[in-house]
Amino acid sequence: GQGLPVFHSGDGTFSFKPRGRIITDVTTTTGSKYDGRNLTTTGMRALRMGLEGTVGTHLFYQFESDFSENAVDVVTAFIGWKNKIAPGLDYDVRVGHLFNDRSFEGSTGSDSTPFAERTVVATAIIPQRAFYGLGIMPRLFWKTGHASLTVTGDRIDGDQSASDNRTVIARAHWNPIKSPRQVLHLGIWGFDEHLQPGKNSLGRNTVIGGRFNGALRLSTGDIIGGTGTTGYGAELGGYSGPLWVMAEAGERHARLDNGRPDFVTQAWSVSGGFFITGDLPPYNPRLGSFGQPKVLRPVFDGGPGAIELTARYENLEFKDIATPAQGWAATLGANWYLNSFVRFQVNAIHWNTENTAGIYTGKDDGETLTARVGVTF
Amino acid sequence: GQGLPVFHSGDGTFSFKPRGRIITDVTTTTGSKYDGRNLTTTGMRALRMGLEGTVGTHLFYQFESDFSENAVDVVTAFIGWKNKIAPGLDYDVRVGHLFNDRSFEGSTGSDSTPFAERTVVATAIIPQRAFYGLGIMPRLFWKTGHASLTVTGDRIDGDQSASDNRTVIARAHWNPIKSPRQVLHLGIWGFDEHLQPGKNSLGRNTVIGGRFNGALRLSTGDIIGGTGTTGYGAELGGYSGPLWVMAEAGERHARLDNGRPDFVTQAWSVSGGFFITGDLPPYNPRLGSFGQPKVLRPVFDGGPGAIELTARYENLEFKDIATPAQGWAATLGANWYLNSFVRFQVNAIHWNTENTAGIYTGKDDGETLTARVGVTF
Amino acid sequence: GQGLPVFHSGDGTFSFKPRGRIITDVTTTTGSKYDGRNLTTTGMRALRMGLEGTVGTHLFYQFESDFSENAVDVVTAFIGWKNKIAPGLDYDVRVGHLFNDRSFEGSTGSDSTPFAERTVVATAIIPQRAFYGLGIMPRLFWKTGHASLTVTGDRIDGDQSASDNRTVIARAHWNPIKSPRQVLHLGIWGFDEHLQPGKNSLGRNTVIGGRFNGALRLSTGDIIGGTGTTGYGAELGGYSGPLWVMAEAGERHARLDNGRPDFVTQAWSVSGGFFITGDLPPYNPRLGSFGQPKVLRPVFDGGPGAIELTARYENLEFKDIATPAQGWAATLGANWYLNSFVRFQVNAIHWNTENTAGIYTGKDDGETLTARVGVTF
Repeated sequence: GQGLPVFHSGDGTFSFKPRGRIITDVTTTTGSKYDGRNLTTTGMRALRMGLEGTVGTHLFYQFESDFSENAVDVVTAFIGWKNKIAPGLDYDVRVGHLFNDRSFEGSTGSDSTPFAERTVVATAIIPQRAFYGLGIMPRLFWKTGHASLTVTGDRIDGDQSASDNRTVIARAHWNPIKSPRQVLHLGIWGFDEHLQPGKNSLGRNTVIGGRFNGALRLSTGDIIGGTGTTGYGAELGGYSGPLWVMAEAGERHARLDNGRPDFVTQAWSVSGGFFITGDLPPYNPRLGSFGQPKVLRPVFDGGPGAIELTARYENLEFKDIATPAQGWAATLGANWYLNSFVRFQVNAIHWNTENTAGIYTGKDDGETLTARVGVTF
Repeated sequence: GQGLPVFHSGDGTFSFKPRGRIITDVTTTTGSKYDGRNLTTTGMRALRMGLEGTVGTHLFYQFESDFSENAVDVVTAFIGWKNKIAPGLDYDVRVGHLFNDRSFEGSTGSDSTPFAERTVVATAIIPQRAFYGLGIMPRLFWKTGHASLTVTGDRIDGDQSASDNRTVIARAHWNPIKSPRQVLHLGIWGFDEHLQPGKNSLGRNTVIGGRFNGALRLSTGDIIGGTGTTGYGAELGGYSGPLWVMAEAGERHARLDNGRPDFVTQAWSVSGGFFITGDLPPYNPRLGSFGQPKVLRPVFDGGPGAIELTARYENLEFKDIATPAQGWAATLGANWYLNSFVRFQVNAIHWNTENTAGIYTGKDDGETLTARVGVTF
Repeated sequence: GQGLPVFHSGDGTFSFKPRGRIITDVTTTTGSKYDGRNLTTTGMRALRMGLEGTVGTHLFYQFESDFSENAVDVVTAFIGWKNKIAPGLDYDVRVGHLFNDRSFEGSTGSDSTPFAERTVVATAIIPQRAFYGLGIMPRLFWKTGHASLTVTGDRIDGDQSASDNRTVIARAHWNPIKSPRQVLHLGIWGFDEHLQPGKNSLGRNTVIGGRFNGALRLSTGDIIGGTGTTGYGAELGGYSGPLWVMAEAGERHARLDNGRPDFVTQAWSVSGGFFITGDLPPYNPRLGSFGQPKVLRPVFDGGPGAIELTARYENLEFKDIATPAQGWAATLGANWYLNSFVRFQVNAIHWNTENTAGIYTGKDDGETLTARVGVTF
């Protein structure tokens, strides 16, 4: 984040910066036919503390832990090496606990998502080990895009009594149009995951309709005996001045033992936003994801900040299993960025679920309203 | 704390400061008729790491986590906005995980309490969700007092499967006398809490006779079926030169379902201290609580530090339930402040308990000796 | 670590420095007759965040927590006082959560061990409460050695319902030869631990053959009814130019109730290393342990860094119990220090175990290969 100073050693050999996020939410749901889904809850979307540093011009490291559920959840923790290959061409290699490079919103940090929760493409077309894994990720960057390859074992834990599951992820994005006020974004990605016996549960319980209602999920119930997952997706979008659009789609095949057919997940979404204050969308052309916006007239300089109106439709289906599920959500929202790292967010979501497992089965729909305030430093 | 530097950005727009506490205790109890209460234990009263910052002149944030039980316990974590209304009149509004503004010692930080544990008014006349909740707290400050209103849900956690309990707290203090060496302090406060079905346990197990003896408690046993709590209290005290006195009293009514009578808690205490080194008590007139003292002659400048002798009587009763309990404690203590943020503390406590639930029933009494060293930074 | 700046207050009264470590491993084992031991796993050896500070010239403090198992594990957390007694003679006293001063490698930090795991002398000749305890440790330092005494209760936790176990540890080291390029190191240490009823389990499950294979242990199974432990050991080693050798041996007697004989543990090891880049071994003559090396030509200044080849033999035996165990390991390794605080490490281990408890019984042997990258800041 830009909200904290960078410290340098006297001889300039190393630098250091604290890092953190405080993102707090309140959510209320109405209209479900189930009382147990009409909840009002509070929660922290992220509550992080950490630091990042550099040694010389090539070595860098970062470590951040999340405390938002009143427990430790190590997020990014790595050591990396970066270098230039040629003008406009550079690379880095990072080793440690790494965040997936996978899907446009899936690759966007929790402090930069345009909505309160990521699209179902990012939350459902995912390795079973989820957003993080311990391993190695080389990345190549050129002027109009990047590509990455990730090989990891399990996420960080204290259990070394069985071999790790193994995941390979690749992603690339390309900007065939890239001018000061216009960008066209194309992205593809995929992953393959091998599951060890005893570490092979495939049950899903995916958020739809806002993050902080624990009863509002698309659920498959327990599915055991997985042997692996393969997923892939595509991204198409961009911006022209203050208007942006992003379409994402993906599919996941989860393989099961004993000759059972693959458990298939399909997801797609179309999102967009418009900055009524004229600011450009916070597109990061190096990583092909959203980052922190450059606010033209920050509140702290007497301006109005940046105000963005947003909309999204997303659709998710779990199929080819005994207890399939499907659902969709439509979201209208607004973001008010006081400056590049302080923001308010409201989302109004109409959601529609059809589960066959769990206690909230059958067709159900309702509305969720969520408000957020966040600072990244 | 004052023990760490404040960092400013080059343009002065934001500032940042690490925060933390290390407070370590050893406690020994003798004289109980139960061997299981005559314990010698070590413990950390607080072990905190965090940071605070400002952006511009209005926005501020803070995040601190406690690790004293070798687990995460998020304490303060908020984003706030402050402003002046008129000369001598200002306000702030904070959103996030907030510490109760409730009772004089209950509003005093763990690094500033005059005794090893807060008075039973602060630890027993309390919402069931305890010292912290996730929500919003506006506060108004004038030259001779302040008032606050707090609305929160549950404390921070990872469970959003049921609606949050809801708590409203208000407190105000007033200094009818406020001169450089004399202050008269009046305070009132109250709270109302609504409990959700399934989150309605009212059992209490309140420390009396020092913090770090887990067997030395006033206990009600399990009480389920609570529907809400209402509590209120008053504070009367102040200081004249190096001598301070503070009386607190409060009562809590915990409502039960099925027409049962309220479970009533009554508590009161009288505390006082005298700085034999002539320092003024560490009264914070803005918040109406204790803070860090201004030590006239710190040890680090070759002085004796500030030395304070303290005494307290406190009385607690749980009544109108099947298993009532009552007890009192008398404490003699001394605090040696090396400077404003490093201190030693010893407390000798004679305690007297009468439980009807749990394994330590009947009349019992004994002595607890506790020693502490702490640094706040 | 040296990888971060030290901050000073304007008047020089206090200083402050963030601290941390990121040490990440990958390990693979082959050749065991048990499939359950032929594992490939990832793990973080250490993932720490903390800070240290001073107030004036005498008072210092430190607090560091480890998150490497995706949970909190408070490591060092203390407040200390240091002073000079005479030229070449000084002392400090620390109160809080303290790391054992016990054995050469046992006293070496996780970021400075010459191999991926400490010698079995350090991991097996140990109080039952393990590496940390809450208490007090005075240390005396003279020009050619140091001595320490430690008295602690349990490690830091949230349980004060029973009295703490009590441990006393002492260690001294002496350098009869100490010149710029030659050091002879002699060390002795011992401990005595008293166990409380109900906190008296003596079962051991000690790593042999690398740290991150949870199935590769010397195991005693459950042993309950311990009343205390007594252990002692000796260290003999030193360096001449870039070559170092260190021999350690120790024995532990764990006392059992009901007249059972002592459960005896015996361990010894011989280790050595050679810096082919000519650097001196990272011996810390003040503490009698390894610390961070002074790299002659760091990679960040265009040099090769420091490259060290290492070897170790270690032997461990659990005896005089119903289910004894024995094993040994021989390790060849290499360390590449990019600078004083960034390093790569590889270890190739041939191990040999003979358990009579657990599921991996009988004679077994195999090979473990482990690689590590670490940064300390």
